[in-house]
Amino acid sequence: MNYVVDTLFALFSFVLIIMMVPGFAMLEAGLVRTKNVTAVLTTNTMIYLVASMMFLLSGYHIAFGAFGSDSMSAWAVFLFQMAFVGKTVNIMSGGVSERTRLIPLIFFTIAMGGFIYPFIVNITWGSNVFSGTFLDISSMHDLAGSTVIHSTGAWALLAAIMIIGPRKGRYKNGKIRVIPASNIPLVTLGAFLLWIGWFGFNGGSVGAISSKENADAVALTIMNTNTAGLAGGIMVMLLSYIMYKKFDITMILNGALGGLVAITAGADVVGIYAPIIIGGIGGILVFYFVMFFDKLQIDDPVGALSVHLVNGIWGTIAVALFSDYSLLAQLKGIVVVAILSFSISYVVIYIINKFSPFRADEELEVEGLDSEECGIEAYPEFKKSF
Amino acid sequence: MNYVVDTLFALFSFVLIIMMVPGFAMLEAGLVRTKNVTAVLTTNTMIYLVASMMFLLSGYHIAFGAFGSDSMSAWAVFLFQMAFVGKTVNIMSGGVSERTRLIPLIFFTIAMGGFIYPFIVNITWGSNVFSGTFLDISSMHDLAGSTVIHSTGAWALLAAIMIIGPRKGRYKNGKIRVIPASNIPLVTLGAFLLWIGWFGFNGGSVGAISSKENADAVALTIMNTNTAGLAGGIMVMLLSYIMYKKFDITMILNGALGGLVAITAGADVVGIYAPIIIGGIGGILVFYFVMFFDKLQIDDPVGALSVHLVNGIWGTIAVALFSDYSLLAQLKGIVVVAILSFSISYVVIYIINKFSPFRADEELEVEGLDSEECGIEAYPEFKKSF
Amino acid sequence: MNYVVDTLFALFSFVLIIMMVPGFAMLEAGLVRTKNVTAVLTTNTMIYLVASMMFLLSGYHIAFGAFGSDSMSAWAVFLFQMAFVGKTVNIMSGGVSERTRLIPLIFFTIAMGGFIYPFIVNITWGSNVFSGTFLDISSMHDLAGSTVIHSTGAWALLAAIMIIGPRKGRYKNGKIRVIPASNIPLVTLGAFLLWIGWFGFNGGSVGAISSKENADAVALTIMNTNTAGLAGGIMVMLLSYIMYKKFDITMILNGALGGLVAITAGADVVGIYAPIIIGGIGGILVFYFVMFFDKLQIDDPVGALSVHLVNGIWGTIAVALFSDYSLLAQLKGIVVVAILSFSISYVVIYIINKFSPFRADEELEVEGLDSEECGIEAYPEFKKSF
Repeated sequence: MNYVVDTLFALFSFVLIIMMVPGFAMLEAGLVRTKNVTAVLTTNTMIYLVASMMFLLSGYHIAFGAFGSDSMSAWAVFLFQMAFVGKTVNIMSGGVSERTRLIPLIFFTIAMGGFIYPFIVNITWGSNVFSGTFLDISSMHDLAGSTVIHSTGAWALLAAIMIIGPRKGRYKNGKIRVIPASNIPLVTLGAFLLWIGWFGFNGGSVGAISSKENADAVALTIMNTNTAGLAGGIMVMLLSYIMYKKFDITMILNGALGGLVAITAGADVVGIYAPIIIGGIGGILVFYFVMFFDKLQIDDPVGALSVHLVNGIWGTIAVALFSDYSLLAQLKGIVVVAILSFSISYVVIYIINKFSPFRADEELEVEGLDSEECGIEAYPEFKKSF
Repeated sequence: MNYVVDTLFALFSFVLIIMMVPGFAMLEAGLVRTKNVTAVLTTNTMIYLVASMMFLLSGYHIAFGAFGSDSMSAWAVFLFQMAFVGKTVNIMSGGVSERTRLIPLIFFTIAMGGFIYPFIVNITWGSNVFSGTFLDISSMHDLAGSTVIHSTGAWALLAAIMIIGPRKGRYKNGKIRVIPASNIPLVTLGAFLLWIGWFGFNGGSVGAISSKENADAVALTIMNTNTAGLAGGIMVMLLSYIMYKKFDITMILNGALGGLVAITAGADVVGIYAPIIIGGIGGILVFYFVMFFDKLQIDDPVGALSVHLVNGIWGTIAVALFSDYSLLAQLKGIVVVAILSFSISYVVIYIINKFSPFRADEELEVEGLDSEECGIEAYPEFKKSF
Repeated sequence: MNYVVDTLFALFSFVLIIMMVPGFAMLEAGLVRTKNVTAVLTTNTMIYLVASMMFLLSGYHIAFGAFGSDSMSAWAVFLFQMAFVGKTVNIMSGGVSERTRLIPLIFFTIAMGGFIYPFIVNITWGSNVFSGTFLDISSMHDLAGSTVIHSTGAWALLAAIMIIGPRKGRYKNGKIRVIPASNIPLVTLGAFLLWIGWFGFNGGSVGAISSKENADAVALTIMNTNTAGLAGGIMVMLLSYIMYKKFDITMILNGALGGLVAITAGADVVGIYAPIIIGGIGGILVFYFVMFFDKLQIDDPVGALSVHLVNGIWGTIAVALFSDYSLLAQLKGIVVVAILSFSISYVVIYIINKFSPFRADEELEVEGLDSEECGIEAYPEFKKSF
């Protein structure tokens, strides 16, 4: 019966994570301008299709070796692990949206889903080719991937932004032009679908529920996950009001997501009040880093670097601060993944960019990507205000 | 294994209920005018953040005492109970939308999530401070809160409407101005997310699934829940066509929600055909009470009083009509909760209103709350028809 | 404990399938023009209400006899089976949208949900009135209804299109006028909700999870289901780019859905790589048959015939090609269901059409169905571009 219940639990977790596919799609479609909405939706769909297929064909094997598991169905293990893979590309593609062509993103998705992310998994959660060497980081505690997933995707994003550059007109004479989100209900829906998916992400990463200890660990993990999201959102709500006398819903939701990323490394090993601090700081980091990256003219339309990179790092450090894990092991893990994810992604994006440029040409960017890339407007019947 | 399976079941139910967060948000965002959509979404998000956090900090303890459970993970119990708390405020905030400021709603959310709702739970499902006194209503059967949740939230709403008043221009010279919903797909999506959440709400309230009897009770509860929703929707569909020769989708969906509220008290103790009558009457009540409240110039943009108050009462009575529970005990429960919920909420809202007025000033209401409260339009690129 | 776990599993599957209700609603609402969006949403809601209620009152009994089960809660069995019934009408109504009145659709939903679909289930998965006769097709392997559900709904759709005809102006002087989808985010959201629902559809159809063999079969089924969806989407993505140098998201999503339909008959009995071929061919079939049906002037605004009929047939055949089942038994099942579903549906639609015409009159069709059928515009505040 343990085998059965753990299989059911893995399938339940898998389904929750898959809700993040429409989650990311709705969040990003809501955050960009209408002229790029179809392109964003197509990109998100493509990522799920291609990254998941690549994980079946090569990724799983690079990460874990042959299919198989004694404690639950091997296919449930595969599905659960497969649900993660697209997230790394979602993080990257979201941050370069509104100016990036789809074809090179397909090539990058093949590389990330089939090879780069599986390699990072191999050296952290997997069969570990670096075992015993200086690069062995398997002693880092990273429950569901603050570093393994969120930072990996976000390092790739940083590499991509360096190569692709900001949206046209975003920074002019040192001034930042605010580009408003086009559909706030979609942003809200997407954020909450992501939040729900996170329960499967983190809860399922405990790996089993079939003993009393595991059941407690899973429930604690989900509770802590939720609490950190609450704290992140609340902190940004307060900051947003204190600073601007307004409640900026897109920032509040990003603050909650930041809290969720921050708790992802340690949700299973910290007490029930620690997530208030971990997530709260996560929210604060999102609030200030969104402005900070803008000052550096690093153009990230959905705030992915602040949510996933800054909080991926913070969350992995927080494990050591709020539990018994070694800070050194956590830092070493962060640094090794940073170096590998960033440098490999940079090289791959650089090479792809040579034969299939990521950047849409100026005319297309002004017109919007939907017309030429997809041939379909997102809302053809709604008259534009400008 | 019972411990494990009941924990998994509680977590499954919890996740379903959390779908009601985007559910309420989408429903209400679709029902209001575009100029207030961001404010509604921000309010719904704030409620989840603040009410849930307050339930962790004080609410759970007021309702149930210390964390702990022998039959499943204490954290799963917490999560399941926490998922309920925001609903009371959702019901209240929805009914006063399009004219209410966010700051006082935050204070009310703190009060409701941290104290008022937990107190009502204490005297019904919890450790019961009134035990043995005249106010002891623990013999009322209210499976998942027709009275405890839906009426509590709706009594608070009635108090709020009395203090805040109707939207400007809604009633003029005894005439009712119809204000159309701005986004029907969102209304539909939201209603079905709520419906799905209800399976977790009512099913999970059985409390355990790990015996044959419990498994049957859970499945029966979910089946009855669904049937009542069907019947409520069908009745309004028929009424809507008979009266107006039109199928009014917002009324049909509210009829289904009314049926779902009505079955919430007794889904576990009635037969499989009773929900057709309970839910059907629930739908009829929604249909006529929406008009009735409008005649009284009680302005409730989302129909929350008809759905949650009228059917909360009806559902609690219906338990006695369709099972062996005492009608007197049910009525006493309804009355005690009515008095407590209404009077406490009224006082709290009255006090908050003194130092932080709920009502937006006229200019802001005409312009829409989004601009000043949130600084973000919901659909900035879509040209308005008027 | 087997009883408990199988009940929990059936309830989990049921909830996933119910996500297909908003899934179909959002998909279709996004694919039609804004003037028909409310009508489409109302139709989808009506179908869930009426078909499910009819299945409780008559359908379940026609299909399976009295309520009851030894291996899990009888009510969980009912809920799981009930979740299927509306899908057949969704398939039919989607394909005749933008020109069809609601009243006759209600009559058809009563017929399909209460009688036609249950009869088809009776002779395939149920108590089988044709047992032992020439029409006995119980040896066809159709796990979750490539033929029983998807083809049944789609044969009814073909009958309906023959009687109702194409949308006005769709085919003029042998030319096909493209009518663009009005809301691409809704299309994407709907497609992924359907995809998620499919995990419950196919996984739950294994019927039990409480042994190691069953747990493996369920996980394999869900994995294969997903893989086929991926392959269908990827194939259309490639075809769409090769043929038009554009990525047509509505076609890609329909390709994925085609792959999902195709794997529905045999997800439990084929290996883990077979779905790449089965789903990939499913995608190709969608791509070409959408054009083919348009050439035949069979007007199907959502591509339902290509997704559900063509792939329902292909998927049922594929079972024999990729496993040990008899091709003859599969073909006989396809043919018998085709004859029965098409002819019964044709007669029923024909009769309904005599006293309550399906076709909206020309003026109403031009104006859009929302105004007169529902009295509610989907997006009243958004100015139209034309």
